[in-house]
Amino acid sequence: MTTETLPVTDRTRVRRLPKRGNYELDTIRAILDEALLCHVGFVIDGSPAVIPTIHWREGDTLYFHGSAASRMLRSLEKGVEACVTVTLLDGLVLARSAFHHSMNYRSVVVYGTARIVEGDEKLRALDALVEHVVRGRSAEIRRPNDKELRQTLVLAIPIDEASAKIRTGGPIDDDEDYTLPVWAGVLPMRLTPGEPVADTGVVAEVPEYIAQYSR
Amino acid sequence: MTTETLPVTDRTRVRRLPKRGNYELDTIRAILDEALLCHVGFVIDGSPAVIPTIHWREGDTLYFHGSAASRMLRSLEKGVEACVTVTLLDGLVLARSAFHHSMNYRSVVVYGTARIVEGDEKLRALDALVEHVVRGRSAEIRRPNDKELRQTLVLAIPIDEASAKIRTGGPIDDDEDYTLPVWAGVLPMRLTPGEPVADTGVVAEVPEYIAQYSR
Repeated sequence: MTTETLPVTDRTRVRRLPKRGNYELDTIRAILDEALLCHVGFVIDGSPAVIPTIHWREGDTLYFHGSAASRMLRSLEKGVEACVTVTLLDGLVLARSAFHHSMNYRSVVVYGTARIVEGDEKLRALDALVEHVVRGRSAEIRRPNDKELRQTLVLAIPIDEASAKIRTGGPIDDDEDYTLPVWAGVLPMRLTPGEPVADTGVVAEVPEYIAQYSR
Repeated sequence: MTTETLPVTDRTRVRRLPKRGNYELDTIRAILDEALLCHVGFVIDGSPAVIPTIHWREGDTLYFHGSAASRMLRSLEKGVEACVTVTLLDGLVLARSAFHHSMNYRSVVVYGTARIVEGDEKLRALDALVEHVVRGRSAEIRRPNDKELRQTLVLAIPIDEASAKIRTGGPIDDDEDYTLPVWAGVLPMRLTPGEPVADTGVVAEVPEYIAQYSR
């Protein structure tokens, strides 16, 4: 059985440390699904701009909130070129030499032209957004009304030009450095939830999906 | 006593939810110092590219690893325009309506032209990089030799065109939604270290600066 992989393009090819590159759709999807936020790059008047925002995925469509891009989008009928990057930090890699220090991480870069999402797709996408952040919550809350829908800009990019880059494992030091008396290894890092803080006046119990929250 | 603030430029002005904007240098520095990684945006052949990498700060200079930019830099004598964005996720903001869901976060965007760092500044900057990630470690490990220095590309941007954007606190719902029986509040999120995993053959004890690691 083969895993579905994306074709490698000139810009998705992982050039630096190519062994870390991964073009399998399952891998790309899993990283996008675990991450809570992305960084979207645009070109504005010829200069780069990178904005953090929330993203989510439905099938092989990547959605993101686009308020920051709205100025540009209003002037572009054909969509706006974007690069959406998502990074999960998994650990600090502490080597015996400064040079071989590193981080364990899983990242995905998606290139494409963002289109504005409207109509039924927009309403479905916004339900999926809540589910992406907190699974189980969309059925409990008030869904967007028409006014809110008009105020919300949802953008979409097809996940068809994308790659993942992954580093795992311990430090790889130069042979002659293994005798140095310094501690070396990995300090795992993880985004973890704290104690839920209820808003004033809330009488409902903390739901299971929040009490047991994990990514 | 006034706090030093940066002048607001057309691209650092926080337009969407301007109350979240913050131009104080102390705030900007603190966010840059806490974050373990950044996302750097470049324009390549007219298209945006966003790459995750490690950054660090010395005074009001922002440094970052530039291997991903090396192709471009080789062809540009005057430096390369970049946008460096750093985001700390502090919590999920769970409102009674989908529309008012949000996240608590602290982000910084720095615009500028990246220059290549060389000579003594490069060596100092690389010490500072290790200290940025794990304070106390640079004195224990082997410093970069000449070959490693040549293989490492360090870039710098002055922190003089930058802004922070911050959201804190609980959900703000519409008046009529406060009677909905759903739980609402904040789920704090934090990047936390796990148990250190020693590399094979390490005899040194786990140092205090790792056992007690926090950002």
